[in-house]
Amino acid sequence: MKFTKKPEPGIKLRKKTMETFSCDNPVNDKFKVPSKVSWNKKTGRTIVEVRGVEIGGPEVVIIAGPCAIESKEQLFETARSVKAGGARILRGGAFKPRSSPYNFQGMGEEGLKLLHDISVETGMPVVTEVMDTRQMDLVASYADMIQIGSRNMQNYPLLREAGMLRKPVLLKRGMMATIEEFLLAAEYILSQGNEQVILCERGIRTFETSTRNTLDLSAVPMLKHLTHLPVIIDPSHGTGLRWMVPSMAKAAVAVGTDGLIVEVHYKPEEALCDGHQSLDIEEFNKMMADLEKIASAVNRKISLT
Amino acid sequence: MKFTKKPEPGIKLRKKTMETFSCDNPVNDKFKVPSKVSWNKKTGRTIVEVRGVEIGGPEVVIIAGPCAIESKEQLFETARSVKAGGARILRGGAFKPRSSPYNFQGMGEEGLKLLHDISVETGMPVVTEVMDTRQMDLVASYADMIQIGSRNMQNYPLLREAGMLRKPVLLKRGMMATIEEFLLAAEYILSQGNEQVILCERGIRTFETSTRNTLDLSAVPMLKHLTHLPVIIDPSHGTGLRWMVPSMAKAAVAVGTDGLIVEVHYKPEEALCDGHQSLDIEEFNKMMADLEKIASAVNRKISLT
Amino acid sequence: MKFTKKPEPGIKLRKKTMETFSCDNPVNDKFKVPSKVSWNKKTGRTIVEVRGVEIGGPEVVIIAGPCAIESKEQLFETARSVKAGGARILRGGAFKPRSSPYNFQGMGEEGLKLLHDISVETGMPVVTEVMDTRQMDLVASYADMIQIGSRNMQNYPLLREAGMLRKPVLLKRGMMATIEEFLLAAEYILSQGNEQVILCERGIRTFETSTRNTLDLSAVPMLKHLTHLPVIIDPSHGTGLRWMVPSMAKAAVAVGTDGLIVEVHYKPEEALCDGHQSLDIEEFNKMMADLEKIASAVNRKISLT
Amino acid sequence: MKFTKKPEPGIKLRKKTMETFSCDNPVNDKFKVPSKVSWNKKTGRTIVEVRGVEIGGPEVVIIAGPCAIESKEQLFETARSVKAGGARILRGGAFKPRSSPYNFQGMGEEGLKLLHDISVETGMPVVTEVMDTRQMDLVASYADMIQIGSRNMQNYPLLREAGMLRKPVLLKRGMMATIEEFLLAAEYILSQGNEQVILCERGIRTFETSTRNTLDLSAVPMLKHLTHLPVIIDPSHGTGLRWMVPSMAKAAVAVGTDGLIVEVHYKPEEALCDGHQSLDIEEFNKMMADLEKIASAVNRKISLT
Repeated sequence: MKFTKKPEPGIKLRKKTMETFSCDNPVNDKFKVPSKVSWNKKTGRTIVEVRGVEIGGPEVVIIAGPCAIESKEQLFETARSVKAGGARILRGGAFKPRSSPYNFQGMGEEGLKLLHDISVETGMPVVTEVMDTRQMDLVASYADMIQIGSRNMQNYPLLREAGMLRKPVLLKRGMMATIEEFLLAAEYILSQGNEQVILCERGIRTFETSTRNTLDLSAVPMLKHLTHLPVIIDPSHGTGLRWMVPSMAKAAVAVGTDGLIVEVHYKPEEALCDGHQSLDIEEFNKMMADLEKIASAVNRKISLT
Repeated sequence: MKFTKKPEPGIKLRKKTMETFSCDNPVNDKFKVPSKVSWNKKTGRTIVEVRGVEIGGPEVVIIAGPCAIESKEQLFETARSVKAGGARILRGGAFKPRSSPYNFQGMGEEGLKLLHDISVETGMPVVTEVMDTRQMDLVASYADMIQIGSRNMQNYPLLREAGMLRKPVLLKRGMMATIEEFLLAAEYILSQGNEQVILCERGIRTFETSTRNTLDLSAVPMLKHLTHLPVIIDPSHGTGLRWMVPSMAKAAVAVGTDGLIVEVHYKPEEALCDGHQSLDIEEFNKMMADLEKIASAVNRKISLT
Repeated sequence: MKFTKKPEPGIKLRKKTMETFSCDNPVNDKFKVPSKVSWNKKTGRTIVEVRGVEIGGPEVVIIAGPCAIESKEQLFETARSVKAGGARILRGGAFKPRSSPYNFQGMGEEGLKLLHDISVETGMPVVTEVMDTRQMDLVASYADMIQIGSRNMQNYPLLREAGMLRKPVLLKRGMMATIEEFLLAAEYILSQGNEQVILCERGIRTFETSTRNTLDLSAVPMLKHLTHLPVIIDPSHGTGLRWMVPSMAKAAVAVGTDGLIVEVHYKPEEALCDGHQSLDIEEFNKMMADLEKIASAVNRKISLT
Repeated sequence: MKFTKKPEPGIKLRKKTMETFSCDNPVNDKFKVPSKVSWNKKTGRTIVEVRGVEIGGPEVVIIAGPCAIESKEQLFETARSVKAGGARILRGGAFKPRSSPYNFQGMGEEGLKLLHDISVETGMPVVTEVMDTRQMDLVASYADMIQIGSRNMQNYPLLREAGMLRKPVLLKRGMMATIEEFLLAAEYILSQGNEQVILCERGIRTFETSTRNTLDLSAVPMLKHLTHLPVIIDPSHGTGLRWMVPSMAKAAVAVGTDGLIVEVHYKPEEALCDGHQSLDIEEFNKMMADLEKIASAVNRKISLT
């Protein structure tokens, strides 16, 4: 794993007004897309490279791993298994945003070190969340891709810091953010000079309570229509229901997602966080076999090894 | 076309309490599923037959046609084209629920007659909406399947009337209805003795405004998990955007829908209603070719002729 | 009680396009208000008279009574008490829209007769809900004001029938209806020639679950800004919590409501429907005393006898 | 102005489980209130003192001032006017969270210095927003009360930092936050030892678009029912409409708010931020006169000088 230093913090904010969106397939006449994230015939689509893994190209990239890093055994066992099942990038939270101050808050730097070690062993790049501007350098020194979570989608100082990195950023849509606000949040990052941004739809909050969130799959064609950035789906938070994850993952691949980020745990029933929405290894492997067929039907590819 | 008389209006309401849902994959411990719509290992899934076309079996059934019946030419041209493209059932509104009293309200009985004529010519069964208990007999005398629209999902007298029919009923989820309320609305129909009900997810209302509604594809696995009834998707109202319909249709097939109901117009730009979300014939044909591949990848079938 | 016959069913739909709203205090530049409900400097505000009780004038009119009519004793005891406490109009449901087919559905015509009898005894005009076009004449023959409930706000045939009455109509906002849709629903009634419409905000559906609905009190100034029709508030459905009703009623009077519709039951703990949100007589009396002070502070009046 | 040093950063997180809420007026049986914010008969209500001004006592405290500090003249003129009109605390943003990176982001520390100067001149305590953990000490050294904005309601590192201050914290409800999540966010602050927290409802996001947000006034009785903390209302963000602010402010006082935070600008039409929802001085004075009457009707007080 390469330890990238955070470069050029002094990049100036380029003052550019937003452009009214205009294309052959209008959304509505009020809709505006900020200039740097806006799709553009000339420049085409962006492919984000995460230490050798390309997101936004022909492959549907599977990111998998536990919600939170809980122990060496849990992380390592899960990581080896998802790699064997076809995952290309490992996920795992060291700093966890939890609704209650009394819930497990993550292992912190110790978790980051474990993430580094298993990354070296398996060769998989890793993505992990950062919540605090003061932790940006620390997290960036261990991670191949920085995740900004839903609750921080409009944490502007954090977005600016991410914009000053020269590392890919996985930006999750806020649970009640419009597409327009999501694009503006991404624009905060791009406006600082970092164009390596991946947009992630992870379910929005609606009146419906049978699922944890309502996974808005229309966000995939919409975002790909409006921007040049890759778009991925999180079916784990999007549904909150372990048994529903594979179904929605299949739909996501069919609708054109560039990747999936999926919670997998070697023993979901023992998970400290979100076990009810984590697949076990067997379920993950079965899902991957199904996804391969769908990917093929839409002229994309998923490699099972 | 068979003109079924409405039978046995005197069926008594069977007083049965709701059952708490209990299965291997719980939704949540508060969730209750009413008894007649509830899925049950012993009795299995319901297949609804609409004049020879089975919904809920191995085939993904495509229902297509114009939003509103506007003229003989418009209906007939569109019907012939969608049949040639693989649609199995024809849709077309004669009585249209419109937000404004000043918008086109449909052709009424004249439209129903046109629907009957083209049904005879093409051999396709037809589905059309009923909005008023007083029109139930009239509409049922022309249609092979009765549609109850979103705005009437909790119009209980209408649901009871539909329950006393011996014809299939296509029940659309209210744009504000929870899954639980949707099941209770279906239960109103089944409680009157009519078990031929198809559930249709057509987009729910959320804070997001770039799409007309938010198409909740998780409703497919959820409803199939909770009930024995077939479930279909309406990607036209679900997105409100013509160019997005095929993408979401693909996702719907991947997620396991039993059918699709799609707005198609031979000249969308001239449509009196919802032209912005209607496919033209070429777009419909292209979509069907794509859907066939996805269906095959999930072990379902769509026949293109 | 006067038994009004339904007059002139043949009124033609006047084709008028909507007017873009333009005034000194714009809402937003896209917003349109349909022509007949639109506020207009020249014609001023509408006062709706319900058998001698004026809604939309200086008085804040209190409508009170049980959710559902359950028995003669329950209705009569409650009616006498709310009259003694200052209520001007009696409410009580004979036909109840219930989410489940297995819940109590109301006493039907027998309930209407009880309503008539207590109306004669107390001299209070009565309002009750109609759900089915086929029951319009029946209900209108007993009621002084017809209520169209939330679930039927977009039941267009029912709105048209109400528009052909020559009786006041209490139209409740759909639980997920925008202000724009609410106005269009009212326009359906006015477009048939009946201008005696009262708009009622009763809580909208949001993500929040601690209250049954979210009572949108901003609807009062908004609706009074856009239309000439009286606006009232239903704090019982708006909160779903008995102990919270008086607080929200006070806020409603302060914000300028023309009236309140409140559920009161002589024995809430025995109610067949919505007992958890019904005030008992003592709570009602205490609330009325508080409301009188607020009304006075905003230059309106509430008479406690 | 007192420059408080941030004390005792090493306070340990006390592990306490949440308590199921139980009282005479239950919300629902699933609802849990975290232990430190929970209302308790023994300890009663908390009064928060902001440099001599008590919030949570008999007075309804008015906090007023510009959305953003734009210039010395703008801030000073506005501050003097709102003080003359009865405001007790001055608001003004130096660091502004803006949806777009291309909008005015605030004057930063220069704005804080202006705030300090006018605070000294007028004797009014000041409240201003902090967005970044790295700015907490800086902002706390100028402000009498720290504001945590809607977008940061679940920014847990920021909440923890605020919890380590020994200064009052004004915590705004997230536009997508349930009451339960709002209480958990407050618990993050209290769990660090800072009990001087004021809860502020400022409108939630719903499907309705005629107002900027839907001001949930039921949050006042609900929060006062569940917690011991003072609750205030922001009618400016809650409506987004200048002409509607006074109406909703009146409702807020009637429903029992402990205070209001209102945007006032000496020249709203020239405001760099949120001018459409800012009152001018004349409107502010007129509103205050109206509020005094309502406060009196609910046995609270507002002093106009």
